Amino acid sequence: MKLQLALDLVNIPEAKEVVKEVEEYIDIVEIGTPIIKIEGLRAVKEIKEAFPGLEVLADLKTMDAAAYEVQKASEANADIVTILGVAEDESIKGAVEEAKKQGKEILVDLIAVKDIETRAKELDALGVDYICVHTGYDLQAVGKNSFEDLQTIKRVVKNAKTAVAGGIKLDTLQEVVKAQPDLVIVGGGIANQEDKKGTAAKMQEMIQQG
Amino acid sequence: MKLQLALDLVNIPEAKEVVKEVEEYIDIVEIGTPIIKIEGLRAVKEIKEAFPGLEVLADLKTMDAAAYEVQKASEANADIVTILGVAEDESIKGAVEEAKKQGKEILVDLIAVKDIETRAKELDALGVDYICVHTGYDLQAVGKNSFEDLQTIKRVVKNAKTAVAGGIKLDTLQEVVKAQPDLVIVGGGIANQEDKKGTAAKMQEMIQQG
Repeated sequence: MKLQLALDLVNIPEAKEVVKEVEEYIDIVEIGTPIIKIEGLRAVKEIKEAFPGLEVLADLKTMDAAAYEVQKASEANADIVTILGVAEDESIKGAVEEAKKQGKEILVDLIAVKDIETRAKELDALGVDYICVHTGYDLQAVGKNSFEDLQTIKRVVKNAKTAVAGGIKLDTLQEVVKAQPDLVIVGGGIANQEDKKGTAAKMQEMIQQG
Repeated sequence: MKLQLALDLVNIPEAKEVVKEVEEYIDIVEIGTPIIKIEGLRAVKEIKEAFPGLEVLADLKTMDAAAYEVQKASEANADIVTILGVAEDESIKGAVEEAKKQGKEILVDLIAVKDIETRAKELDALGVDYICVHTGYDLQAVGKNSFEDLQTIKRVVKNAKTAVAGGIKLDTLQEVVKAQPDLVIVGGGIANQEDKKGTAAKMQEMIQQG
């Protein structure tokens, strides 16, 4: 099981500071969608340069022109690129093909997918590397989480790695770890804490034991 | 009826050159999703600075954290911001509310929406400014277009303006104009032509007559 730190509401210098504090306890650092839209893919490039020992995920949430976007993220040295589960199969295929060519991985974000079970099976058959259940900010705000959806994809996904994101904190991590995803994605649960390093250390420990 | 030039596969200096050539014949210039992801929102800011007489649309294709993304695009002087029709209603509401606060407009992109008619009605009720049918690059590549979907939304949308995008060229524009959308979005149909200015001029003329 791996731990990914998602950075969304910071600029590049702030992102570097947070990662520096917790780098020994995380496996992957995610450059979130808002950072990429505000700063561009140089955010990915700069973080990878500063932390070559970490995997870097570019949260492009690609919806179209998928091969092109994966190519551009690869040029910025992303290791993993995200595409939306609600995207057309043609886009998913384009992303997977380009990622294979570039030696990168594709994570599909199931945010806003209505029939998680059916779509997860389809995506698994399309050869994506990770399938991620995700309750976004706008649904977290009305009290939703992804823990049930995680059980669903764990049951039906046979080839891809499984991932979970959306509002995970230290006090909910145990429940998530029990479901045995391959990747746990934490944003504010680390980045907004007073003691980021201590929190990340505890989370990594729980994940190792899980 | 307005004409929007969509710029996707260019960098900022190339975008400026293309807009300069056709500016008198277009109403809105769209900074496409790939440009924003590669260059960041400064692409929007620079184009608006260079062409203050044109409306600028930031094609964010927002999926989450909608109010935040609309706020950031507003700070970059976008006039119109896009959100995905497949996004959760909570996100659509957040985008509309923030756009109202900022004095901006929201265009919802129906790309990959399965039931266009139902979703268009719902989005219309949520108070968005534009509803846009859109066949993306990855489906254009397998021969799809948006002309039928345009008829569908023209029939059911009562309040929002209607828009159409995806593979529109000079020789297909007449069919599009007949359906009387409020906004026609053209990308390669202008940007990839030898005579961009002449093509844009002809298109604007057809739209005026339509």
